[in-house]
Amino acid sequence: MAESATDRLTVENQPTSEGAYRLKGELHHSKDQACGFELTENFERFNQANDIYTRGQWDARIRSDKVINWFKGMFRPGLGARKAEGYSVRDFALRNAGWMGANLTIQRSLKQGRVDAFLDYILPYSDPNPEKIEIESPEVMSEEMKSVSRLFGADAVGITHTDMRWHYTKSFSTKTLAEKPYGIPDGLSNVIVIVTAMNYEAVKTYPSATAGIAVGHGYSKDCELAQNIATYILNLVYRAVACVNDTSLAIPYAIAAGLGEYGRNGLLITKDFGPRVRIGRIHTDLPLVHDQPISFGVREFCDSTCQRCAAACPPKAISFGAPEARIPNQSSIIGIRKWQVDAERCFKFWVNQATECGVCMRVCPYNKDISRWWSRAYYRTWTRLAASPFKRLALKLDVALGFGQRIKPGEFWRRFRSR
Amino acid sequence: MAESATDRLTVENQPTSEGAYRLKGELHHSKDQACGFELTENFERFNQANDIYTRGQWDARIRSDKVINWFKGMFRPGLGARKAEGYSVRDFALRNAGWMGANLTIQRSLKQGRVDAFLDYILPYSDPNPEKIEIESPEVMSEEMKSVSRLFGADAVGITHTDMRWHYTKSFSTKTLAEKPYGIPDGLSNVIVIVTAMNYEAVKTYPSATAGIAVGHGYSKDCELAQNIATYILNLVYRAVACVNDTSLAIPYAIAAGLGEYGRNGLLITKDFGPRVRIGRIHTDLPLVHDQPISFGVREFCDSTCQRCAAACPPKAISFGAPEARIPNQSSIIGIRKWQVDAERCFKFWVNQATECGVCMRVCPYNKDISRWWSRAYYRTWTRLAASPFKRLALKLDVALGFGQRIKPGEFWRRFRSR
Repeated sequence: MAESATDRLTVENQPTSEGAYRLKGELHHSKDQACGFELTENFERFNQANDIYTRGQWDARIRSDKVINWFKGMFRPGLGARKAEGYSVRDFALRNAGWMGANLTIQRSLKQGRVDAFLDYILPYSDPNPEKIEIESPEVMSEEMKSVSRLFGADAVGITHTDMRWHYTKSFSTKTLAEKPYGIPDGLSNVIVIVTAMNYEAVKTYPSATAGIAVGHGYSKDCELAQNIATYILNLVYRAVACVNDTSLAIPYAIAAGLGEYGRNGLLITKDFGPRVRIGRIHTDLPLVHDQPISFGVREFCDSTCQRCAAACPPKAISFGAPEARIPNQSSIIGIRKWQVDAERCFKFWVNQATECGVCMRVCPYNKDISRWWSRAYYRTWTRLAASPFKRLALKLDVALGFGQRIKPGEFWRRFRSR
Repeated sequence: MAESATDRLTVENQPTSEGAYRLKGELHHSKDQACGFELTENFERFNQANDIYTRGQWDARIRSDKVINWFKGMFRPGLGARKAEGYSVRDFALRNAGWMGANLTIQRSLKQGRVDAFLDYILPYSDPNPEKIEIESPEVMSEEMKSVSRLFGADAVGITHTDMRWHYTKSFSTKTLAEKPYGIPDGLSNVIVIVTAMNYEAVKTYPSATAGIAVGHGYSKDCELAQNIATYILNLVYRAVACVNDTSLAIPYAIAAGLGEYGRNGLLITKDFGPRVRIGRIHTDLPLVHDQPISFGVREFCDSTCQRCAAACPPKAISFGAPEARIPNQSSIIGIRKWQVDAERCFKFWVNQATECGVCMRVCPYNKDISRWWSRAYYRTWTRLAASPFKRLALKLDVALGFGQRIKPGEFWRRFRSR
């Protein structure tokens, strides 16, 4: 289970004369093939200032009053509401109620110029004591950390090594509206990756503000859960830094930790919840063993058979073609061959909705409810079919049974109220 | 369902010449009998400065270095740990990880001299917009608020009216170590009372620091849930103030909202989770209808048959006798006939443990796991037996089946790790 030291990446990022961050040292990790990572020689680490949300704050081509209201609407009553099913004051109210927990984490360090969990890693609430507890073995400790993660609400958890290729080169300051230096403390060589499932019924209503409860509450759970786990480690008394949308790219970490595969819609496709998840990470110096990447047929299914997300995407931001290294714009990472998603088109649609969109999450055949035994049995059977030579049949069955269809927000509310 | 206006209490608190707060106006509410509230004519509203936790900060008879460390230990790694099963660094670590969410709420207003959720009500994160949404009817709105509460994790929810008899007269400032004026904004005449169940397996280990996860995580869930609900209301756009341990006495509110009965151990006994719950409240001006108090035999069972909590209490803080108005010390409210609990004895034991105790919660026959159908079926049958003339048989059966017995913290960890 444990990897040898030579498997670890020794790469560092170094600014080139043009200011781009190229990796110095090994570019490839021995696990990359199993993960499906195809890095090209011109790979560059990503600068968070190029993230589409961050560009919404500094890039004149993206920033607008509408964009600023899009951000503010998450926390201000009534902003964005209009006379349209799924976009009323009540729909936005439920979404914003869901964001409350994330808001507690975001607010925590705002005055120090930090946006914890979204631009900056979450500040640990205390230093660990210097005296560490005795660890029976990294294997036992890993099992313990998975139990702790599940106790606090993780729906899946995996462990991998810190991999600087996925770390941002710079972050962004909302105070100066400029990029700022960035990084996690040195020596945190292991990462616990956690996944929390989002509300299935709400996701069904995309596009709508109603569905936003799934994202808001998802982030809230993720923020607190990541801190629960980090706090446990700090109390053990090792070092730990909790991350959500900040610090690094969540998806490659989740893939390396054995939590799923990369899908055409640019999302992590997990084994149990498909793309309907939020991802958190805890970097730590706790001795742990690493999980292996998994494959359950997603890559082949997306590649050869399924384009539902591409066809359903309202702004046509998802590619119908094969994985490619050419990027649509500066909001994609350079030097990885993968299904590209056009973040500019995607975000423009979001801003016009005054809330996020997740149609590609709703229509994905891997997005199914597994909370009841019969729905779980169907999903297990379906994923096996989708991984077999009968991929087309699997897709046709899925469409015929009505999976992925939108339910109207009014219907969501009717069911919700009568529950 | 809806009460008439004349049912509402018009009482106000007025300082007497001796400084005590006596009620002016009606002392009794028409619901009191159904709630089991027996107020005497010398009733006085409670001053939070007399709460045993608050006295731990200002009262020389209670305050000590040990008490201060007891508070600090919740947030500082390793404090209180020792070489004893259930009190190791790991046990305290799990407890403190559970407190993380509550810590986010507590930290929020510390610099303004507030301890949100524990001494002060939780500051709303924004003002509501002036334009309110249309409410179909208070009945429909009440159902909606119950669905919203459950969506965010409430295990039970009830609605009642704001009742000033249960509100503190003064609160306490941790900055000046003196009492301070207190109160919720005017005009919030309805209260949504929420209940969240605590971890059954952890509670079984009382007395131990291991069990603290049930309390810490319970408070964390309660803090966030109360704010989720308040945020929803603010976004609707009515007024709402979320409370946890602050502002008022949680138990009479929960009883009035139909969530349970008062038990010999001084705790709320809920229908589904017995005493194993945390209680939150949201005061609001949203039009709502009120629930009726329930009775499922607890009062008679505690009164005539069961003294398990009193017998098991390590510092003998629970009365074996009948309800009485005489209070053991200033940490009890004056003028209510009820089973008295000696908070001084109770807290002294807590401080010596370096963590809270909940033996009275563990041994209570109403504390049962109902997460599986057979355990739920047994509990339902048992509560009916306990409410029948065969009360003694119910108690004997419970003891014979081993319910309420302590499991060793080591056994908790063994089961926990292998989950």
